[in-house]
Amino acid sequence: MVDVTLLGVGGTYPLPKRFLTSLYCNYNGNGVLIDAGEGTQIAMKANDVSPTSISTILITHFHGDHTLGLPGVLLSMHNGGRTKPVTIIGPKGIEDVVGGLIRAAGRIDFEINFKEIEYDEQKFELDKDFYVTAFKVKHSSDVECYGFTLNVTRKREFLVDKVKEANIPLQYWKDIQSGKNVGDFKANDYLGPNRSGIKVCYSTDTRPCELLLKNARNSNLLILEAMYLADNFERAEDKAHMLACEAIDIAKRVKAQKLWLTHYSPMVTNDEIRDFAERFKNYEWLEVPTKAVHVKLLYKKD
Amino acid sequence: MVDVTLLGVGGTYPLPKRFLTSLYCNYNGNGVLIDAGEGTQIAMKANDVSPTSISTILITHFHGDHTLGLPGVLLSMHNGGRTKPVTIIGPKGIEDVVGGLIRAAGRIDFEINFKEIEYDEQKFELDKDFYVTAFKVKHSSDVECYGFTLNVTRKREFLVDKVKEANIPLQYWKDIQSGKNVGDFKANDYLGPNRSGIKVCYSTDTRPCELLLKNARNSNLLILEAMYLADNFERAEDKAHMLACEAIDIAKRVKAQKLWLTHYSPMVTNDEIRDFAERFKNYEWLEVPTKAVHVKLLYKKD
Repeated sequence: MVDVTLLGVGGTYPLPKRFLTSLYCNYNGNGVLIDAGEGTQIAMKANDVSPTSISTILITHFHGDHTLGLPGVLLSMHNGGRTKPVTIIGPKGIEDVVGGLIRAAGRIDFEINFKEIEYDEQKFELDKDFYVTAFKVKHSSDVECYGFTLNVTRKREFLVDKVKEANIPLQYWKDIQSGKNVGDFKANDYLGPNRSGIKVCYSTDTRPCELLLKNARNSNLLILEAMYLADNFERAEDKAHMLACEAIDIAKRVKAQKLWLTHYSPMVTNDEIRDFAERFKNYEWLEVPTKAVHVKLLYKKD
Repeated sequence: MVDVTLLGVGGTYPLPKRFLTSLYCNYNGNGVLIDAGEGTQIAMKANDVSPTSISTILITHFHGDHTLGLPGVLLSMHNGGRTKPVTIIGPKGIEDVVGGLIRAAGRIDFEINFKEIEYDEQKFELDKDFYVTAFKVKHSSDVECYGFTLNVTRKREFLVDKVKEANIPLQYWKDIQSGKNVGDFKANDYLGPNRSGIKVCYSTDTRPCELLLKNARNSNLLILEAMYLADNFERAEDKAHMLACEAIDIAKRVKAQKLWLTHYSPMVTNDEIRDFAERFKNYEWLEVPTKAVHVKLLYKKD
């Protein structure tokens, strides 16, 4: 099960009643935070997210609404008693940018490992059955920007009845389960078909683009920006942001099970958001939140 | 008139319903901000403080709850259209610390001039009748910490009747008003007694100390930390913070006209703050706020 909390829905700058967009996922006690704008530590507290659980922080790009809350998040992890290392993954220059922020934060007791995203698509292992993929998207020309997928893989079913029937000794079961052949026993004969795991895809601050479509495919949960709700195409093109309708279109095309819209412009009022949600109320898979939203994702039955 | 807004009352870290301690003063369109913890730009918006009015930012010390909101404040000034230079005054190293924070914020179009506090007491002119004094206080040993007074000076009354009686030509009135002698006319004879201006004194993160007592003397408004409300003397000594009762004692000793308590520990609940306020309700000059508070300070009648 993956526990997912969208901590805020704002873009550009925080508002008195709208925190900036940031995503927290927890799989098996392994916490991942995507982006940390100013106020994210407050949103974490308001949503009962444990700062000490965070072992990985992913940064999409170096604009203030995605980075300036980082020292506060790191301080709250330190104050909460975190001592285990933390990995921060982001665009080239991540160590320098975060280093400058941390200097003003004061003492942090845990080790921070930085990993730069070097390729247009890149995989980072978080655990044996948990990994992240970074993919390059199209934001303004002054900044490199990435989307992320978080993926939980799932083992093939271990066909115990068949194993017993074949009288495979107990000591070999673990090898078979992990796909290794043991003597004449071919693992493939004792494992069910491939099973889909869980995939969360998160992408803000971009125009629709190929790598987004590719990486968002078959997400259990897709989180996309909806900077403008109205049909404000020229502005979206100019500012390199996405319209709500474009995000909805992407979700349909990639067959996402669920879509959360977020990262609204500060000019977009909550009434406009609610009106928009009303307009699409028959889209059961669509959520147009005005504040934090939370879901537990389970494996699909297959 | 000085317009003063205490933007938050929290210490250590921001809470969902408690912004960090930060003070905004406006005299004659000249805005001064003291400290900017995470969320200060949100508190400014919630309290209708114009970001573009800020021409001076004072930083007491380099702990995150006093600095991490700085890039957000600067960004909101930039987004609001500020182009005039801004002065940031703080402890040694201010340019380096703020520089590291700004790098993550993105583009800021106005010039920033940094001024380091070099002495235990130091005056900085903000305008011809408006100045700030920094004074060193006693916080934890790892960090230099300062309190500030903001001062509006007031000219002596120009005794028009006496000037007319002496037949002083109109062209010399301005000189006389500004204290210059003109020929045989001694300015002193045509000006009333000295008049007190307006003094706001702000100091958090300190044990009671001599320079605080000296600089807080006769404040129209004194703003002091009350990290702990309970009689928790050992903890206050250990953490180099002040108890609420110590702040009240100082206000009495320096004859402050008004005292605002602030910078409460996150462990102190709003109920405890209200109980404390109730206990001292016959102290008319004392305010124990749970959230932002605002006042307009006028010259005393004298």
